[in-house]
Amino acid sequence: MVKLVVAYGHPEDPAAFDQHYAETHIPLAQKIPNVRRFEAGKVLGTADGSAAPYYFIAELWFDTVDDLQTSRQSPEGRAAGDDVGNFATGGATLMIAEA
Amino acid sequence: MVKLVVAYGHPEDPAAFDQHYAETHIPLAQKIPNVRRFEAGKVLGTADGSAAPYYFIAELWFDTVDDLQTSRQSPEGRAAGDDVGNFATGGATLMIAEA
Repeated sequence: MVKLVVAYGHPEDPAAFDQHYAETHIPLAQKIPNVRRFEAGKVLGTADGSAAPYYFIAELWFDTVDDLQTSRQSPEGRAAGDDVGNFATGGATLMIAEA
Repeated sequence: MVKLVVAYGHPEDPAAFDQHYAETHIPLAQKIPNVRRFEAGKVLGTADGSAAPYYFIAELWFDTVDDLQTSRQSPEGRAAGDDVGNFATGGATLMIAEA
């Protein structure tokens, strides 16, 4: 399997990020086809107490890289991807990783 | 649940990293108590084709933050943690996140 790791930088307004993520982004993400598992949550800190480079991490598991790319390019995938720009004021790094 | 996300920067010698990880680090990590799930793999790239900030990501799931910290501080946890310095020539960022 592979996963899409979406690592969100610290937003300008965390409360607004949280609200948009829960009320708008999650419903869009849940429509993306071929997602085998979805997991998302806040970064609570780093192990050594230094500043965490990210505020929030979401992961979407797919069977293959081809599935992942096809799903990202589907209408539902594009809708979720386009929505990131609406709330990710701290940026978002999208990595594809072995899982 | 919570997870420990270990994000490894690009090592000086990827082949040496891979060999040490597989032959030495995985066996040490497998001895860490209270790990509910372990997942690790290479970062294959970013969604937009830009350079990925990490080479490899490992995740260890625990029931609670307390379990995570207790396990990290156990002899087995310390052995695995100390080993990171033996192969992570690109550094390692350890984040604790909601899961």
